[in-house]
Amino acid sequence: MLSRAPLDIPRLIAERRPGYSLAAPFYRAREIFDLDLEVIFGRHWIFAGVEAELPEPGDYTRLDIGHLSIVIVRGDDGAVRAFHNVCRHRGARLVTQEAGCVGKLVCPYHQWTYELTGELIHASHMGEDFDPSCHGLKPVHLRSIGGLIFVCMAAEAPADIDDLAAVLEPRLAPFDLRNAKVAKQVDLVEEGNWKLTMENNRECYHCAGNHPELGQSFNKYAVGFVPDADDHAGQAEAAAYEAQVTAQVADWEARGFPSVAVEHLSGRATGFRTERIVLDGAGESQTLDTKAACRKLLGGLTDAKLGGLHLWTQPNSWHHFMGDHAVTFCAIPLDPEHTLVRTRWLVHKDAVEGVDYDLDRLTEVWNATNAQDAALVELAQQGVRSPAYEPGPYSPLTEGLVDQFATWYVERLRAHLG
Amino acid sequence: MLSRAPLDIPRLIAERRPGYSLAAPFYRAREIFDLDLEVIFGRHWIFAGVEAELPEPGDYTRLDIGHLSIVIVRGDDGAVRAFHNVCRHRGARLVTQEAGCVGKLVCPYHQWTYELTGELIHASHMGEDFDPSCHGLKPVHLRSIGGLIFVCMAAEAPADIDDLAAVLEPRLAPFDLRNAKVAKQVDLVEEGNWKLTMENNRECYHCAGNHPELGQSFNKYAVGFVPDADDHAGQAEAAAYEAQVTAQVADWEARGFPSVAVEHLSGRATGFRTERIVLDGAGESQTLDTKAACRKLLGGLTDAKLGGLHLWTQPNSWHHFMGDHAVTFCAIPLDPEHTLVRTRWLVHKDAVEGVDYDLDRLTEVWNATNAQDAALVELAQQGVRSPAYEPGPYSPLTEGLVDQFATWYVERLRAHLG
Amino acid sequence: MLSRAPLDIPRLIAERRPGYSLAAPFYRAREIFDLDLEVIFGRHWIFAGVEAELPEPGDYTRLDIGHLSIVIVRGDDGAVRAFHNVCRHRGARLVTQEAGCVGKLVCPYHQWTYELTGELIHASHMGEDFDPSCHGLKPVHLRSIGGLIFVCMAAEAPADIDDLAAVLEPRLAPFDLRNAKVAKQVDLVEEGNWKLTMENNRECYHCAGNHPELGQSFNKYAVGFVPDADDHAGQAEAAAYEAQVTAQVADWEARGFPSVAVEHLSGRATGFRTERIVLDGAGESQTLDTKAACRKLLGGLTDAKLGGLHLWTQPNSWHHFMGDHAVTFCAIPLDPEHTLVRTRWLVHKDAVEGVDYDLDRLTEVWNATNAQDAALVELAQQGVRSPAYEPGPYSPLTEGLVDQFATWYVERLRAHLG
Repeated sequence: MLSRAPLDIPRLIAERRPGYSLAAPFYRAREIFDLDLEVIFGRHWIFAGVEAELPEPGDYTRLDIGHLSIVIVRGDDGAVRAFHNVCRHRGARLVTQEAGCVGKLVCPYHQWTYELTGELIHASHMGEDFDPSCHGLKPVHLRSIGGLIFVCMAAEAPADIDDLAAVLEPRLAPFDLRNAKVAKQVDLVEEGNWKLTMENNRECYHCAGNHPELGQSFNKYAVGFVPDADDHAGQAEAAAYEAQVTAQVADWEARGFPSVAVEHLSGRATGFRTERIVLDGAGESQTLDTKAACRKLLGGLTDAKLGGLHLWTQPNSWHHFMGDHAVTFCAIPLDPEHTLVRTRWLVHKDAVEGVDYDLDRLTEVWNATNAQDAALVELAQQGVRSPAYEPGPYSPLTEGLVDQFATWYVERLRAHLG
Repeated sequence: MLSRAPLDIPRLIAERRPGYSLAAPFYRAREIFDLDLEVIFGRHWIFAGVEAELPEPGDYTRLDIGHLSIVIVRGDDGAVRAFHNVCRHRGARLVTQEAGCVGKLVCPYHQWTYELTGELIHASHMGEDFDPSCHGLKPVHLRSIGGLIFVCMAAEAPADIDDLAAVLEPRLAPFDLRNAKVAKQVDLVEEGNWKLTMENNRECYHCAGNHPELGQSFNKYAVGFVPDADDHAGQAEAAAYEAQVTAQVADWEARGFPSVAVEHLSGRATGFRTERIVLDGAGESQTLDTKAACRKLLGGLTDAKLGGLHLWTQPNSWHHFMGDHAVTFCAIPLDPEHTLVRTRWLVHKDAVEGVDYDLDRLTEVWNATNAQDAALVELAQQGVRSPAYEPGPYSPLTEGLVDQFATWYVERLRAHLG
Repeated sequence: MLSRAPLDIPRLIAERRPGYSLAAPFYRAREIFDLDLEVIFGRHWIFAGVEAELPEPGDYTRLDIGHLSIVIVRGDDGAVRAFHNVCRHRGARLVTQEAGCVGKLVCPYHQWTYELTGELIHASHMGEDFDPSCHGLKPVHLRSIGGLIFVCMAAEAPADIDDLAAVLEPRLAPFDLRNAKVAKQVDLVEEGNWKLTMENNRECYHCAGNHPELGQSFNKYAVGFVPDADDHAGQAEAAAYEAQVTAQVADWEARGFPSVAVEHLSGRATGFRTERIVLDGAGESQTLDTKAACRKLLGGLTDAKLGGLHLWTQPNSWHHFMGDHAVTFCAIPLDPEHTLVRTRWLVHKDAVEGVDYDLDRLTEVWNATNAQDAALVELAQQGVRSPAYEPGPYSPLTEGLVDQFATWYVERLRAHLG
């Protein structure tokens, strides 16, 4: 039978088999991509950047998601706000640079001028009946949690962002990220659907075969990897790692660094997971030699050996916070088969490049790892394009978190399609 | 509710709010772009070029509009005709160059050969039952008005082209454009829907902030720009300009140069507007120093100070005719978000480059202005892509002609959708 | 009336007029392209390559058709098999190179490992309930006929491939193509629908005007070209050629080289045509000087003057087998308006480049001819894009085989749409 009919999305959602990867249209179809933008990226909290990018009033960054463009700007009152980057006159894009600093937001077309609060304060020649107060910039919800900026485009934003804030603020407080600086930002376009980018991030089954650099510091048992029943050496390794974690976590908690895993990945709008994990080797940082890459530690920290505090948020981010630096990753859908991965490395704002840290050393592990992941995501995208693709089984031992991501995704679509 | 349904175009047309820009799909949707090609460009008179490009029998130019390609050719009898650029055998494109000179039109595939009248005169090996007279090139309506070529692809072309001819022939006669030459042609692709290109052309609200070069000769009060009620300096400027226009127009009319505004922009198939406006400075030409760029004037003119005769046609052209040269602009939709703007500068056919005119000086103002307009159109396109875009108010003081264009466009769709 | 409705494919099929080229959507519409991939390329025998590419166990080639990717691999048992190039875990592309040699097929993502028979023999960490025997590679039907590899993606492949085998095996046996080598492979992307590529291949009406190099050896009367009734010189030429063919074919047949035309182009799933034709000049090879390009003849042949054994298969190949070398052409649809043409030149496996043959001399005629055909196909595609295109008449004298191709194509769609 020929499948000429429009995509039956509710049926595809209903037929999703737990424990298995998604049906091909979820990774390829324009209709589902549009739905993803509307429902997943349009009605949930999206990780959008860091306050450290906007140290001064007037500093702004632009974020484009699909055809949507928003501007995130720090006001004269120090508050960070987000607006749709669309002039209320004839709709021209207001801010054209990716980042910058302005006194007011002035449309280049006819010079309509907005305050950093979004208020329209000047529009010439519009006649007596024109009411500027009805033509302010359209606001976008924004929450900064420990210096991480989340935005939500919905009229009403999910309230459970409060849970993320409650868990995360005390964990991030010691890093004082609001006063960090972005040492480097790298944009990489992966040739795959954004969900393949996320699925790839949610398992380390592929790490041993693909990530030699990351493998120096990153213990595969740290993220849900379970050795086979007959792999006795593996079992011993895993047990040893577990023992190390138990001791280390007890120590961290005693010193005031919350570390135990908190996992709220499904059954809610704002899914997330956080855990402080032990790093291999010197245990300080995700570097090739596993030692701190920045001499000046984040915030007021004095001990570099704090392991790695992971944070995953749904739908689109992952983060590693270490004593010497933090790395944040933001995935932005570009089209059904392309995803932007924006990586930012944060260090103490007073750390001096070339003195306190070497930029190559700071970034080399994740630059390599990102490139490897991009190649894998591309292979996965090529595969799901084939009519011969059918959903395959996630490993119950090592891909449980991938399954959780897929489950959350399907739940959210279902919730909004009713 | 999710908008998965096909675009409801009649409803979008019905919901258009007068005085406001169009809904986003009019600027972006493939369905509406296809409709634009079919209805607006397929059934109305389109400005296609100038006779001056085809001085000799056999001279041809090719014009592509969307996937449609036509060839405009001067016959051995001196008449200019237009045909679909499609061989009647297996449909191969007949003419592949943008312009050239031929004796016959010969298909490169199997050498079917057509007269410049479109008649098929040779097709080998087609057997005895084949009737060449049924396989001539498909003609396209063509009207030359004062040397400007208009074409219409419809079976029956709108008859009100006669009104345009009646108004325009006497106005263009003094310039003798049929005997001009094209000093330069420049193609520019704007990254925006063709209607944003046209809207941008129909107001000068954006001129002060964006067009310093054009501003040397072009008075903003010339095209519907009205100062704010409390702008006393502006009011005085506008009044002074009006007084100057009144005197100048009376003089021109007395000397046999029809100059008063004729405006038929809506309520009809073939919308147009023409008016002779006073230029600033020396008042001769749209040059940086406002003086004539070509020493040899057009036609048999002896006075360079003739201001600028404007012509706007709907859907796709605008023109400035001055004593020393003319500039014609032709907008051609390429896809929903790209538009070709083809600019031609015409001078007297005997004017010699480097002697009578300097090409840079002749073209610099509009090359700069076109580039500025292209950037603005791109910003507008980027903005209307956003789901946050909503139609905004045209200024009743300075964007009335934009509103007329949008009104005409919606009228034409409505007329053809019934 | 506006054609906003979805394409009515059954109606388009029903309305196809015999003797005329297809309606425009068959050459342009995405829906029909998808149907072509599903029905024509998904359920028929496709020419995919030659055994000579895979001399050793573990040798593989990859073939991508639309989004579908298959891997053709020679097993340790010497048998050649084809599989979908999709890992059964999460669907990643298994084989990323175009060709190579492997011991096992190992997925780069999570190292799932398959035998060359397709069996899954290793997948770590999948838990106790996982059954590898349910996760072998999905097989694709494969038939090698005289060293030419045909594949079929359907669950049940058309049985009439046996007829092609019965006719072809004895004809190809003398060339021993399984023991030939690929001297050169060239990929060319034509900017046209795959059916325009095929139509272009099925007539020589265009040869005289376009193929000077091929014309050295290739007599236009060899493929359905009939001179006009009043072309007395042509009539004489044709008669002379016919006489030469009659004598030559009788000789070839007597010497055990089946040569008479066998034509099964319509009314069946697996359409094909084969015939040994006389070559012009020295009559040995499709070279510029019409003499053999390779000193060492194919198989155990001792006589270079064997003319050219043609083979056409539907939907996607054509071939010329001569005494000294063979050329095979494979057309692969890339998208509605792009087609890959892959050309392979085969010589005796022991022939040494630079000694027995010069690569330029071997390939120059078809490289030139392919480039000329690509230009013609592009013109045809440009033409059918125009709304002014309408199906035109195939010449009953010289385009009968084009008509047969179009007839077969429409038949196959009809058969599968029911």
